[in-house]
Amino acid sequence: MEYSFSNKVANLKASAIREILKFTAFPDVISFAAGNPAPEAFPAEEVKEITARVLAENPVAALQYSITEGYTPLRDTLKKRLASQSCYNSDIDDLIITSGGQQGNELSCKVFLNEGDTLICESPSFIGSINSFKSYNVNLVGVEMDSEGIDLEKLEEAIKSNKNVKIIYLIPNFQNPTGKCMSFERRKAVYELARKYDVMILEDNPYGEIRFAGEHIPSIKSLDTDGRVIYVGSFSKILAPGIRVGFVSAPKAVIQKIVVCKQVSDVHTNILAQIIADEFLNKYDIDSHLERIRAIYRSKCGLMLSEIDKNFSKKISVTRPQGGLFIWATLPEGCDMMGFCKKAVEAKVAVVPGTAFTIHETDPISSFRLNFSTPTDEQLVKGCEILGKMSKEMFD
Amino acid sequence: MEYSFSNKVANLKASAIREILKFTAFPDVISFAAGNPAPEAFPAEEVKEITARVLAENPVAALQYSITEGYTPLRDTLKKRLASQSCYNSDIDDLIITSGGQQGNELSCKVFLNEGDTLICESPSFIGSINSFKSYNVNLVGVEMDSEGIDLEKLEEAIKSNKNVKIIYLIPNFQNPTGKCMSFERRKAVYELARKYDVMILEDNPYGEIRFAGEHIPSIKSLDTDGRVIYVGSFSKILAPGIRVGFVSAPKAVIQKIVVCKQVSDVHTNILAQIIADEFLNKYDIDSHLERIRAIYRSKCGLMLSEIDKNFSKKISVTRPQGGLFIWATLPEGCDMMGFCKKAVEAKVAVVPGTAFTIHETDPISSFRLNFSTPTDEQLVKGCEILGKMSKEMFD
Repeated sequence: MEYSFSNKVANLKASAIREILKFTAFPDVISFAAGNPAPEAFPAEEVKEITARVLAENPVAALQYSITEGYTPLRDTLKKRLASQSCYNSDIDDLIITSGGQQGNELSCKVFLNEGDTLICESPSFIGSINSFKSYNVNLVGVEMDSEGIDLEKLEEAIKSNKNVKIIYLIPNFQNPTGKCMSFERRKAVYELARKYDVMILEDNPYGEIRFAGEHIPSIKSLDTDGRVIYVGSFSKILAPGIRVGFVSAPKAVIQKIVVCKQVSDVHTNILAQIIADEFLNKYDIDSHLERIRAIYRSKCGLMLSEIDKNFSKKISVTRPQGGLFIWATLPEGCDMMGFCKKAVEAKVAVVPGTAFTIHETDPISSFRLNFSTPTDEQLVKGCEILGKMSKEMFD
Repeated sequence: MEYSFSNKVANLKASAIREILKFTAFPDVISFAAGNPAPEAFPAEEVKEITARVLAENPVAALQYSITEGYTPLRDTLKKRLASQSCYNSDIDDLIITSGGQQGNELSCKVFLNEGDTLICESPSFIGSINSFKSYNVNLVGVEMDSEGIDLEKLEEAIKSNKNVKIIYLIPNFQNPTGKCMSFERRKAVYELARKYDVMILEDNPYGEIRFAGEHIPSIKSLDTDGRVIYVGSFSKILAPGIRVGFVSAPKAVIQKIVVCKQVSDVHTNILAQIIADEFLNKYDIDSHLERIRAIYRSKCGLMLSEIDKNFSKKISVTRPQGGLFIWATLPEGCDMMGFCKKAVEAKVAVVPGTAFTIHETDPISSFRLNFSTPTDEQLVKGCEILGKMSKEMFD
C-alpha cells in the first residue's frame, strides 16, 4: 500500500546522528558522537531511595492520572529555584512541567507559528530542535555565530528580510553543538533586537547548571521586562535524561496555551519521574551534587582539550567550552570534513559531522562535534591519539 | 504584551471536563465525572518490587537516554502479545512505545493530515482525541452512532462529501463517552468502506482488555489485509495511567514516520516506566491481574446500573456497557441537559455534560457521562439516589 503522508513529515528525516550512533554499538569503536551525560553523574542511589519511599507511602499518587501543568510541589520548587536565578517572575510568569526540554521547545513552536512563519536560530544548532521546528513546516532561518554568540547584524538582516518572524531560538549556554557561550553584552543586544522588531525569544538552557569554568552569565530571561522570553530547562543533565522531565517558565498567557497543547499530546509527564525530581531537589544537597557533576565534566573536558593540543594538527581549531558536553572542531578551509569523519569511523573513532547540525542539509560546514561526557578517560586519550594521527597525515 | 498565537491553538480550549473536575476537588462532592481507573486496580506492590530491583541491578539503563522506538524488550513483549490477538503482523507491522495512547493518536494525525484535510470520528467521541486533532487544524467530521457503532450510511456520506478524507478514528470497544461496543459485522463493514475509499483507520483501544461481560470481538486491525489500520493501545487501564505508557502497532512505513515525529517531541518515553511495563507483563501473572481488574469494574458497573434502575426516572435511558469505565445517560428529547448537570453539581454530584464530547461546541446533545470506576460503592449508591430524585422531580 502507498501512503500519502502529510507535507509536515514527508521530508522529515531521522536524525543523522542516529546513523552515526549505529557504529558506536560496536564495542571496539570509541564514541565521541553521543550527547549522553556521564552515567557516573546520575544520582542513582538517591533515585532508588526516593522511589522506594514514594511507592511505599503513597503509590496511588505516583500511578494515577495527574494534571497537565505538572506535579504541584515540583512546580513550586522550580518556581522558587528559577526565581532565585531571575528566570521566573511570579507577577507575570507561570511554569509547566514538560516531557524533557525538547517538548518545551516543540510546543513553543506549535503555539506561536503557523506554517510558513519564520523561526530564526543559531547556525549550526541542536538537531532535535531543528527537526522539531521543521515538523511544523515553518520557515527556518539559521544565522551564524562568532565567538560571542549569534551575529547581530546578520540576525537583524534575517528579521528584516523574512516574513512573520515569530521566534528567535537560542541556546546561550554551552551551545549544542559548538560549546559556545553567548556573552552578556550579546544577550542584551539580542533582547533589544527582539524588542525592536517585536519577536519572541525561545531560550533553551539544558546545560546552564553545568558550567565548570568562568563566571555565571545571567540568562536572557532575566533581562525580560516585556514578557517576550520563553525559558526552557531540563533535568536531563543535572539528574538523568531517561526520566524525561523538563520545564518551561514563560508569561502566563503563553503557558496557558502550552498546557492546552501538552494536554492533547501526552496528557501529563510521567508522575513518578516528577516526584523523583522534586524530592531530589528538596531532600538532598543539590548544590554539592552539581559541584560533583561539574568536577566530572571539568576533568573530562580538560583531558580532551589537552589531548587535542598534544595530538591534533595545528590546522584544526577547537572551541574551549566552559560548560556543557561538547567541543566543536573546525578543519582548515576547503578540507573534506565528511571524508575526515568517515575515515575516523573506519579508524574506530566516531564523531558527528557538522552537517548534522546545519539548518539545511546543503549548508557548507567544515566542522565536527566531539563529546567528552560519555567516553572514559582511557577512551578520551586513545581516541584523540587516533584522530590526531589522522589529522596530521591529512593536513600537515 | 499582546501575543499572536498560531491559528492552530488560538481557538483551542482546555477540556471542558477540567472545569467540571474543579468541583470534584471539594470533599463533599461525589464525582461521577472522572475518567480515572479504580486506584485499587493498580498493581502497586508489583510496581514497587520491579522498581526496587531495576534500580538496584542496573540503574544506568533506567536513567540514561534511550531510543525513540522504545525499550526493546517491551517492544518484543508487546509484539508477541499483540500477535496473539491478531493486532500485530510481523510481516508488515512495526511497533513503537508512546507516552500514553494519546500520543499515538496525536502523532498518527500529524503524520497523515495536512491542515484542512478531513478526519472522521464517532460523534460523540473522546475529548482528548478531538482536541488533539483540532490542534492540527484538520477538518473534523463527526458521524453519529447507533447501538452497533458508527452509522454506515452516514459514514459513507461523510467520506463522499468531504475533501481529502485521510483517517477514520474509532474507539470500537466500550467507547468513551458512550460505553458502546461496535459489533463485529459493523467492524467488517467499516473496514470495507475504508478500502473502498482508500482511507486509513485509526483504531483506539484503551479499554479492550477490560471487557467484563459478553464475548470478545476481534479488532478492526485483525481484519486488515491492506495495511490501512493503525492500532493504538495503552497501559493506562491495565497497569496505571500515571506512568504514561502506550503503544502503536501499524505498518512499518507508518511507524517509521511516527518515530521521527516522536523523536522531535519527547525523544522517547520515560524508560523506567517502560521497564516496569515490560517486567510486569513478563514476571507476573498478567491474566489473573486482568481478571481481578475486570471483577472490580464488573461489580462497580453492575452496582451503578442497578442503582440507576432503582432510582432514575424511566425517561432517562442509559447504555449497559460490557467493559470500560463509562455509562452514557440520555435525557428525554427537549430537556435541558446542561441545566440537569448544573443542578446535579449543586446537589453535590458531578457528571460530565455531553457537550464536552461533541465534535463542535454547538452540536445539540441531551446526554451526559457517568463514570463508575473511580467512586466507592457507597458513593455510587448515594450519588445515584441524588441524581434519581432530581430526575424524577424534573421529568416525571
